[in-house]
Amino acid sequence: MTEIAVVHCGQLVPVSGPIVEDGAFVIRGGKVDWVGKTDEVPKGLEEFDAQGMVVTPGLVDAHTHTVFAGNRLDEFEWRSKGATYQEIAENGGGIRSTMNATRDCEDLKTQVKKHQLRLVRNGTTTFETKTGYGLKPELELQHLEVADAGVATVKKTFLGAHALPPEFEGNLEGYINALIEILPEAKKLGASAVDAFIEAGYFTPEVTRLYLQTAKKLGMEVHLHVDQLGPQKGAQFAAEMKATTADHLEYTDEEGIRALFVAGVTPVLLPASVYGLGKTKYPDAKAMMKAGLPFCLATDYNPGSSPTPSLPFVMGLACRYMGMTPAQALVACTSIPSQTLGLGDRKGSISPGFDADFVIWPYKDYREIAYWIGDVMPERVAIAGEFI
Amino acid sequence: MTEIAVVHCGQLVPVSGPIVEDGAFVIRGGKVDWVGKTDEVPKGLEEFDAQGMVVTPGLVDAHTHTVFAGNRLDEFEWRSKGATYQEIAENGGGIRSTMNATRDCEDLKTQVKKHQLRLVRNGTTTFETKTGYGLKPELELQHLEVADAGVATVKKTFLGAHALPPEFEGNLEGYINALIEILPEAKKLGASAVDAFIEAGYFTPEVTRLYLQTAKKLGMEVHLHVDQLGPQKGAQFAAEMKATTADHLEYTDEEGIRALFVAGVTPVLLPASVYGLGKTKYPDAKAMMKAGLPFCLATDYNPGSSPTPSLPFVMGLACRYMGMTPAQALVACTSIPSQTLGLGDRKGSISPGFDADFVIWPYKDYREIAYWIGDVMPERVAIAGEFI
Repeated sequence: MTEIAVVHCGQLVPVSGPIVEDGAFVIRGGKVDWVGKTDEVPKGLEEFDAQGMVVTPGLVDAHTHTVFAGNRLDEFEWRSKGATYQEIAENGGGIRSTMNATRDCEDLKTQVKKHQLRLVRNGTTTFETKTGYGLKPELELQHLEVADAGVATVKKTFLGAHALPPEFEGNLEGYINALIEILPEAKKLGASAVDAFIEAGYFTPEVTRLYLQTAKKLGMEVHLHVDQLGPQKGAQFAAEMKATTADHLEYTDEEGIRALFVAGVTPVLLPASVYGLGKTKYPDAKAMMKAGLPFCLATDYNPGSSPTPSLPFVMGLACRYMGMTPAQALVACTSIPSQTLGLGDRKGSISPGFDADFVIWPYKDYREIAYWIGDVMPERVAIAGEFI
Repeated sequence: MTEIAVVHCGQLVPVSGPIVEDGAFVIRGGKVDWVGKTDEVPKGLEEFDAQGMVVTPGLVDAHTHTVFAGNRLDEFEWRSKGATYQEIAENGGGIRSTMNATRDCEDLKTQVKKHQLRLVRNGTTTFETKTGYGLKPELELQHLEVADAGVATVKKTFLGAHALPPEFEGNLEGYINALIEILPEAKKLGASAVDAFIEAGYFTPEVTRLYLQTAKKLGMEVHLHVDQLGPQKGAQFAAEMKATTADHLEYTDEEGIRALFVAGVTPVLLPASVYGLGKTKYPDAKAMMKAGLPFCLATDYNPGSSPTPSLPFVMGLACRYMGMTPAQALVACTSIPSQTLGLGDRKGSISPGFDADFVIWPYKDYREIAYWIGDVMPERVAIAGEFI
C-alpha cells in the first residue's frame, strides 16, 4: 500500500500526542503522512477500516536475545522441582547449554528468523538483539551476520562477554583479550553496541573495563547487564562507563539510580526474567519514576530466564508488580526505547514523518493490552505500511 | 469428519497413558476409537497430518465466570497506582461494577459467547461456569439460561451468593432466603451445582449453610470460594458441607488440607487470580501433593481478579510459583477436572471411547505449553472431532 488511509481507529494512540477517538492516519511511501480524525481524512484515498479497534505504534523492544537454537525445557522442569541454580549448572543447564545447542545448529538463520517473527507477531516491529551464544570469537562474529534475519528493524549488539566458553576455562582475561581483538570486525558486521554480563561468577567491572573502553573508542555504544542476581554496584559501573543503557537492575538501590540519572544512562527493565525464574523481586520502577529517570521495559527474550516474546505480557507485569500505569508501560515500550536505540525520529510514534509501523489490537481501550493475560495478540501488524 | 485418523502427532499426550512419539488416533462419530503409533494406523482412512506437533486432550477448566459484560479497566488502572481494595470499592469498582455492566447489557448472550469462544481458542473444550453478576434472583435465573451459549461442553453453577446486591443492602438473610426459594428453578435451568463466596464482607458459613443444604437435597453439588483473601477455615467448612470442590485456598493451612482430604473434597486452585491482583501468596500445592490430595488448576476467568482465559498461562504459573512439574500441571488441567466435573469417562483424555476433544499445539514437546510465556496459543482445537 503506497498511499492509503487507515480509518476508524477506535482509539488511535500516537504515544507522542493525545489519544484520538475514531482516529485515522495516512500512509505514503511507508511513512506516516497525516494524523487526525476519520471524518477529516483527505478525500480520494484508498481506505483500510480498523473497525473501531485500538491502534498503537509498533512496539520497540530494547533488549532481546534472538540468536539461539534449542530451548531450556529440562532446566525449566528441574527448577519446577526445586533444583537450585548450582544443581542446574551441574546438570548441564544454563547459558552453556544454549551455547551447545546454538553451536550444533546447522541452520541458525532459520532459528533466528523464527524467533524474530515471533516478536513481530506479538506486536514488536523494532528491537535490539544480541549475540552471546557462540562464545568463540569467530562464532560471535558469524552470529552477528545472522542477527537481523527478519522483517523488523534490528539494532545489533555484540555480547561476546555473556559467559566464559569452555575453550577459555580458567582464562577469563584471555577470552576478553580475544574479544577486544575482534571488536573492529564486530563493528564492521553491523554491531552498533557491545554488552557484558556483569555478575558474580561471570564478568567483573575490572575485567571488562578495557573491552568496553575499546568499543567506545571505535564509536560503539555500551549496554550492560547489571545488578540482576544480587547488588553489585553495577549501576554505578554503567554510569562510570557512560553506557547508553543499564539493563536488569533488580538489585539497584537509590544510590545506583542517582548515578544513572546523573550520567544519563537509560535503565532497561526486564520483569519477565524475574517472573520466568519464579522470583518476586522486580526492579524498583517507582523509585526511578520518582527520580525522574525515564526507562524502557523490554522482554529479555531468551530461552533460559525469559522465554517470552511478548511486550504486552511485560506491560501487564509492570502494571501489576511495579506500580506503573498502562499508559506509562506503553510509553516504556515505544517512544522511550526508540530514543534509546537512536531511532527516536522514526520509531515508537504514529506521527507525520515517522515510519508507518503500527499494530491493530482487537480491543476498544489501549489499557486492555496490559489488562488481559495470556492471549494478548495483535489483530494486524504493519511495518513501513505493509501488513505482515 | 465422521471417520478420520489424526497422524504424525510428534508427541501424542493421552494423559491417561504414556506419551506416544509419532502418535496417531482414529476418530469415529465424534469419539476416539483407536490410539497408537502412526505406522500402525488402520489402512484406508482419511488422514489429517499433525506435522509432528504436540497433541493433548482439550483442556478442562473447573472454575470460570463467563456470564458478564464490560471490563474492569478503571479498577486495573487504579490498582496500578496503588489504590487499596477499600478505595476501589468506594470508587465504584469490585463485583458490583461488573454487576451493573452486566445488568445494563442488552445482548448478554453475545458477550457470553465471546468469552466462551475465547476459552476455546486458548485450548479449553470443557469448562464449568457460574452466574453471579445478576445478583437479583430473577436475573440469576436468566443468566443460567445463557450460561452455555457456545460450542464447548459446559457445566453450569448457580452463584447467586457472589455478593450482596444493592436491593438487599443490610438484609443478607433476606437475600439468601430469596435464593433458596429459586433453587428448584435453578436446577431446572440446568445448574448442576451451587456456589458461594465465603469471605469476610461477603458470605459466612452461618448464613449460607441452609442454602447449601437445600441445594444438596435437590441433588445439586456444592462448590465453594474459600480462604482466598484471608484464613477463615473455609476449607473446613467445605469439608463439613461435603462440597465437591473447594476453590482458591490461598490461605488454607495443613489442617484445612487434611480436612479436605478426609472429606474427599477436590481443591480447585486459581493462581491467575493471585497474579492478576499483583499478589505473591499462591495456594500451597506442594502441601496438597504431599498429602496425596489431587487438585485442579483453573483460570477463574473473570473481569476483576483474573482476566485470563488461558490454562497454559495458569500451568506456567504453577510450574514457576507452586512447585509443580509441567506434567503435573497438565493433569491438573485435564483428567482431574474432568473427574471433578463428573465427566471422567468422556473428557480429559485421548482414549478409546472418549470424546474427540483435542488440541494441536505448535510445539515439539508438551512442556513448552507451560514454558513459553504470553503467546501460547493452540494451532488447532477440535471438539467432538470437528475443528473449531
